[in-house]
Amino acid sequence: MTDDVPAVADLLAGAPRNWGRWGADDEVGTLNHLGPAEVFAGLAAVRSGRVFTLQTPMFHDHGDPSSPARSAPQRYMVQDQGSWLGPEPPDLPGGARFADDVLVSPLQGSTQYDALGHVWFDDQLYNGYDAATTIGGLHKASVLPIAERGVVGRGVLLDLAGLRGKRHLDRDETFGCDDLEAAAAAQGVEIRPHDVLLINTGWLEFFYSVPREEFFGSSYQEPGLVYTPSLASWFQAKEIANLATDTIGNEVLIDPRNGTTLLVHCALMRNLGLVFTEICDLRALVASCRADGQWDFLYAAAPLKVVGGTGSPVNPIVVK
Amino acid sequence: MTDDVPAVADLLAGAPRNWGRWGADDEVGTLNHLGPAEVFAGLAAVRSGRVFTLQTPMFHDHGDPSSPARSAPQRYMVQDQGSWLGPEPPDLPGGARFADDVLVSPLQGSTQYDALGHVWFDDQLYNGYDAATTIGGLHKASVLPIAERGVVGRGVLLDLAGLRGKRHLDRDETFGCDDLEAAAAAQGVEIRPHDVLLINTGWLEFFYSVPREEFFGSSYQEPGLVYTPSLASWFQAKEIANLATDTIGNEVLIDPRNGTTLLVHCALMRNLGLVFTEICDLRALVASCRADGQWDFLYAAAPLKVVGGTGSPVNPIVVK
Amino acid sequence: MTDDVPAVADLLAGAPRNWGRWGADDEVGTLNHLGPAEVFAGLAAVRSGRVFTLQTPMFHDHGDPSSPARSAPQRYMVQDQGSWLGPEPPDLPGGARFADDVLVSPLQGSTQYDALGHVWFDDQLYNGYDAATTIGGLHKASVLPIAERGVVGRGVLLDLAGLRGKRHLDRDETFGCDDLEAAAAAQGVEIRPHDVLLINTGWLEFFYSVPREEFFGSSYQEPGLVYTPSLASWFQAKEIANLATDTIGNEVLIDPRNGTTLLVHCALMRNLGLVFTEICDLRALVASCRADGQWDFLYAAAPLKVVGGTGSPVNPIVVK
Amino acid sequence: MTDDVPAVADLLAGAPRNWGRWGADDEVGTLNHLGPAEVFAGLAAVRSGRVFTLQTPMFHDHGDPSSPARSAPQRYMVQDQGSWLGPEPPDLPGGARFADDVLVSPLQGSTQYDALGHVWFDDQLYNGYDAATTIGGLHKASVLPIAERGVVGRGVLLDLAGLRGKRHLDRDETFGCDDLEAAAAAQGVEIRPHDVLLINTGWLEFFYSVPREEFFGSSYQEPGLVYTPSLASWFQAKEIANLATDTIGNEVLIDPRNGTTLLVHCALMRNLGLVFTEICDLRALVASCRADGQWDFLYAAAPLKVVGGTGSPVNPIVVK
Repeated sequence: MTDDVPAVADLLAGAPRNWGRWGADDEVGTLNHLGPAEVFAGLAAVRSGRVFTLQTPMFHDHGDPSSPARSAPQRYMVQDQGSWLGPEPPDLPGGARFADDVLVSPLQGSTQYDALGHVWFDDQLYNGYDAATTIGGLHKASVLPIAERGVVGRGVLLDLAGLRGKRHLDRDETFGCDDLEAAAAAQGVEIRPHDVLLINTGWLEFFYSVPREEFFGSSYQEPGLVYTPSLASWFQAKEIANLATDTIGNEVLIDPRNGTTLLVHCALMRNLGLVFTEICDLRALVASCRADGQWDFLYAAAPLKVVGGTGSPVNPIVVK
Repeated sequence: MTDDVPAVADLLAGAPRNWGRWGADDEVGTLNHLGPAEVFAGLAAVRSGRVFTLQTPMFHDHGDPSSPARSAPQRYMVQDQGSWLGPEPPDLPGGARFADDVLVSPLQGSTQYDALGHVWFDDQLYNGYDAATTIGGLHKASVLPIAERGVVGRGVLLDLAGLRGKRHLDRDETFGCDDLEAAAAAQGVEIRPHDVLLINTGWLEFFYSVPREEFFGSSYQEPGLVYTPSLASWFQAKEIANLATDTIGNEVLIDPRNGTTLLVHCALMRNLGLVFTEICDLRALVASCRADGQWDFLYAAAPLKVVGGTGSPVNPIVVK
Repeated sequence: MTDDVPAVADLLAGAPRNWGRWGADDEVGTLNHLGPAEVFAGLAAVRSGRVFTLQTPMFHDHGDPSSPARSAPQRYMVQDQGSWLGPEPPDLPGGARFADDVLVSPLQGSTQYDALGHVWFDDQLYNGYDAATTIGGLHKASVLPIAERGVVGRGVLLDLAGLRGKRHLDRDETFGCDDLEAAAAAQGVEIRPHDVLLINTGWLEFFYSVPREEFFGSSYQEPGLVYTPSLASWFQAKEIANLATDTIGNEVLIDPRNGTTLLVHCALMRNLGLVFTEICDLRALVASCRADGQWDFLYAAAPLKVVGGTGSPVNPIVVK
Repeated sequence: MTDDVPAVADLLAGAPRNWGRWGADDEVGTLNHLGPAEVFAGLAAVRSGRVFTLQTPMFHDHGDPSSPARSAPQRYMVQDQGSWLGPEPPDLPGGARFADDVLVSPLQGSTQYDALGHVWFDDQLYNGYDAATTIGGLHKASVLPIAERGVVGRGVLLDLAGLRGKRHLDRDETFGCDDLEAAAAAQGVEIRPHDVLLINTGWLEFFYSVPREEFFGSSYQEPGLVYTPSLASWFQAKEIANLATDTIGNEVLIDPRNGTTLLVHCALMRNLGLVFTEICDLRALVASCRADGQWDFLYAAAPLKVVGGTGSPVNPIVVK
């Protein structure tokens, strides 16, 4: 392990956990907070009936804003109108034609739900599952049970970029639960138990406005939540059901204070079972909420049912 | 073209079209029927707040029920707990660990939305777009605008298997709009303009109950809608927003009367711009609706925003 | 482990090994037998200058004769003449055009060299390397050093199908070193130390002559070498440099006497460092050798230099 | 087409072609020059029996030196020792274990043979084949017939970097047939009809000595052959069988005089049927030839038998 960087296990010694809270077999963590009452809370938040979709496009001319440590998604054409111009045209009786294509992509390669077993330390995943259960695919706490259950509830958008008067937060810029409360207060919206929280840092706005090289830099870092004991306590006490942001990792990735990596994932996902949604394109939603002052809404999302998957691309739906 | 099979173009001469109805640039067809009123109609149908997700699992032990003409989806592990047991373990400062994987899959390889440009004839796609626009990816009528818009409205489940007193319809068994009306009447549910229709044939129930070889057979065929002029008129007049079934093709695929292929796609998708959702796993939803007699609900789905995609996997959400 | 099947480790207790014979760092095993003298022995065997290539074609209409346990290779077109007929044609200054494609294939998916670390037991690979060195890729005994060295020497074809008067050996039919000697004697060719042995069972002849379903059957098995203590001693004493056959596994795969799997791999590859080439298409070469009675030749082959690879497709060259 | 850049078709009006020279069905062009006499010429050039392999490694730490316009090759592990440490270990009767992996790579993604139909202009490939035959895969002049035939003959290395007293030629630096003749003369080696020519520019030496960003730059260009009418005449008259270099494109790619792209491919590959091998790692061979003054040798190579392939990775063998 790198010198001078403290161990995650030490930093999180005694930190709160939700292991066992929903049974020894639980694989969906804080989604357990979502039931009919939360569905109705979401429905009740709808006022105009306007629909937003939050996935960032795949294969956009600007490229995909996924981690540079992962391979770039590829789409290959299998059949198109050109196929009928070649020497062995497909022949469907009657003359209908169709186009087909194939996707090659990291399951963490776009806007995505993380499985609860995606990140861990000390050889244990969320709920105490042995990390060996990740071998060859997540046999526990994969994205499958999240996808089977789906996520429907009341969403609240917290505009951190707006709070700080910036188009986007800066690389390495951090915030915590006090800032989330401050944003809610400034916006006049209430964070209620079992809400889905969406945090706007403006980071995708930045991605689409600069060349890729400038966005990723020589060593990628981004703004985001930073771990404190109170952060974990706040999420546990608020019983937040799902955390979504417009950044790749939902946290500052490398803690600027101590150099640890993925510390918020360890504290919130692995310890609390908090479900993460990453790389959400919030631009249109932010513009709408700033315009009409309505910061809560129905949130409905379901990743793909990938058996064993560490995560899955998703296109979350918001109805205001 | 195969002898004795009539041309789709001849069979559909004079058949109704919605081209131009929503403008020369339209790429989402009948999704134009969905707006705030339809969102509220969907919300109003929710009674108990119970959530269902409709994607069939990917990489299930039984295999994927996608077309045998397409390559089987693959998932490859990039990193897991085993990686730390090898000679070059990843080293994240602080000791956090994570698992990653990659998906290789036809975009039509699971429960999926078809792009409106997925199927065509006579060198023109929906809305009159030149079929050459499919080359290298759908430059018109791809799945992207469907994904950007999302689909939120009132869904109605029509239980064709139930209507005919079968666990599942037979291979090659067909039905038409009269049968859809009969099912609605038998169930006591109203099909309203702008609804999302979900049709249960029991076909996935059959898939999961028999060996793959038996399901696919030597030449795959399935039950489904069969084209008649009145079918196209009915869908156009009813202004159905989205058609979803539990079969691979939402239609009988090869018309048993004349041997044409994809005739319903041509009549409804290419001509009317009707949006198709295929291979939905309706088993749990059907069981619930049969039990409580509630056949309408909120339907919310959004495929992935794949630029140029011929379709995209999706995990539709139903809230009853 | 399956009941009643003896352990490979027990069956091979005391069996000969070449570990350490070529140093603690050796990764190419019996290829160490090949040097300038063997190169000249190969050159000396050339009489007519006729060239044969031994790879079985990839994407043949009949399919690929690779293991049904592996995913089928795929080739996707990235660009072709059709690309210039679409709405966004590539534009190379001056008007040149080109076609491109992509391969997705198991590295063991066609005629291939196995890395020496491809198969093992008792947590040790060839030369005693820890099996943990296979994690994430072969850090020891991968296909890379075989590819860097190349294989050039005298090849000898042993026609086992011919010896037994059959077009192809039967499923489950086995043979041993006595049979190899008998074939050489019958053919009038000498097996010399450091030779590359090619064994014709006629199995690919069978593959291409029947429907795939018949070839693979419900539980795939093939003809091949079967382990005996004398087989291992024979290969070690003869100092065979490379073993190539026209079957998927160069051995009977499942030993019909005791049910063990890959026992010959364990005895010859893992213990002796014997390099394996599998799924060679010997049909044209066999026909030629039967016709002119020349059973030895120059053999030259080099798999791809895949860092960490468990194997690599290869197209071996024979010059008679 | 870009303004001011002349048309390839105009530049090559009246340029020599070998179309029809080897029949209307020929797909291997200048490989027709290779027969038994050339095989024996290659064998006769062997003096010490030392073997070299020329593929550049795939997945080297430094990355792959393939075109930045193509997707980067990927290798995924399917099974390794870690698989037995997880919750669902494979179970082979007897306890043998094996590792497997999968390759995803452009077929032009490493050292490779180009199919003769890889590059064209004016809607015709080599030998006059209609460019529409490239659609969905090369139905004519693919890499398959090259792979079936194999390439065995006398190779001659021309050390252009040595001739100019440089470690490597500069980006955009060009040379022609006079320089090839001058190199041969300076080295004291004769270029004979039907030889395989290997040209050392030192470009891979440069690749491995600098960061990737420096090698590729913002707009990739490389040193290489540049078209002149005499270049085409020289290759046709010399009856060169195969041209191999250590650059990505075997030519300067963008002609610095007129801005055309792939002009040498058009003149030599498309018009003459000259077979190209690209991205050869000549470093060890060059060092050897410089040391012992032996610049000719046996050359033996066979790409993979990819039906329809635009090219194929290859690991050529040289025996000195």
